[in-house]
Amino acid sequence: MRILGIDPGSHATGWGLIEREAGRLVHRAHGTVRQVRGAPLAERLGVIQIELGALIEEHGPDCVAVEQVFLAAGASPRSALILGQARGVAMAAAAARKIAVHEYNARTIKLAVTGHGGAVKRDVQMMVRQLLGLDRVPPQDAADALAVAVCHAQSAGLPPGARSGGRRRSTRRAARFVVRRA
Amino acid sequence: MRILGIDPGSHATGWGLIEREAGRLVHRAHGTVRQVRGAPLAERLGVIQIELGALIEEHGPDCVAVEQVFLAAGASPRSALILGQARGVAMAAAAARKIAVHEYNARTIKLAVTGHGGAVKRDVQMMVRQLLGLDRVPPQDAADALAVAVCHAQSAGLPPGARSGGRRRSTRRAARFVVRRA
Repeated sequence: MRILGIDPGSHATGWGLIEREAGRLVHRAHGTVRQVRGAPLAERLGVIQIELGALIEEHGPDCVAVEQVFLAAGASPRSALILGQARGVAMAAAAARKIAVHEYNARTIKLAVTGHGGAVKRDVQMMVRQLLGLDRVPPQDAADALAVAVCHAQSAGLPPGARSGGRRRSTRRAARFVVRRA
Repeated sequence: MRILGIDPGSHATGWGLIEREAGRLVHRAHGTVRQVRGAPLAERLGVIQIELGALIEEHGPDCVAVEQVFLAAGASPRSALILGQARGVAMAAAAARKIAVHEYNARTIKLAVTGHGGAVKRDVQMMVRQLLGLDRVPPQDAADALAVAVCHAQSAGLPPGARSGGRRRSTRRAARFVVRRA
């Protein structure tokens, strides 16, 4: 199973491709769709559509995973609009090619990757590196994309009831075990 | 000049194609990208990408016009996110084909179409019908899409300084004159 994780943003869209192979998670590639600084919004969105479309055609993922947006009370409607625009393009790029899009909330992703739902960003990045055996920590957008891909790989190997994010593991070790088992 | 107006929405995306021909505005086509009721968000966004892409390929517009989003104080971040997702897909569908996307705020559109920036929706629909010589008032999403296309046709025929929406016309008659002159 080949999973493309995407972390959409109007300035930088991270992506990460992993594969579940013989019960192990294997890193295939990751990167960031970069934009020309100061380019108009529509052009930046067009670049996301083109680049993600090309990635999907090239790597042929079986599914795509993205983080669910959590809108806190008092969230900025303007930020939500801007994020929504990039996110919509990313989801459409997959769905237009009949590739299923799975969404996970931040807590579920952190749990899956670090074993702790309240983990900080840096912990997630370090664990992504460790779980996938990377030489270095990937850039933040790509690390976030790999994290949601790892989360899906793990969830997809578990019974459906376990996908909701309700499972809690108290140590990183437990999480690593689950991921490696996936 | 062939202009495609788009009114994006995650449930219904209206579109309207007009052409400026020998100093007149001519209606070419309009419609609504409809969705399967209850389809997941990603699928609906994928449908928008595919359908608008096909429309653009078929009709070859020179440019696209969409309404700018006005976020009032107290606007719902959730609504902004949902609207943003559909809007991003619509803009990307054009930009990915190197077609310029122009944005106009609601007041400018109402001014251009009715001569009155505070016009109600029904007035805009009626004037769209009248200006384009349609037999009947188009469905709301398509009428809104035609309205922003008319607005762009009018603005594009004026000196750049006049495009900002600062012009005000006190009567519908004046607005109709401007549109016909365009």
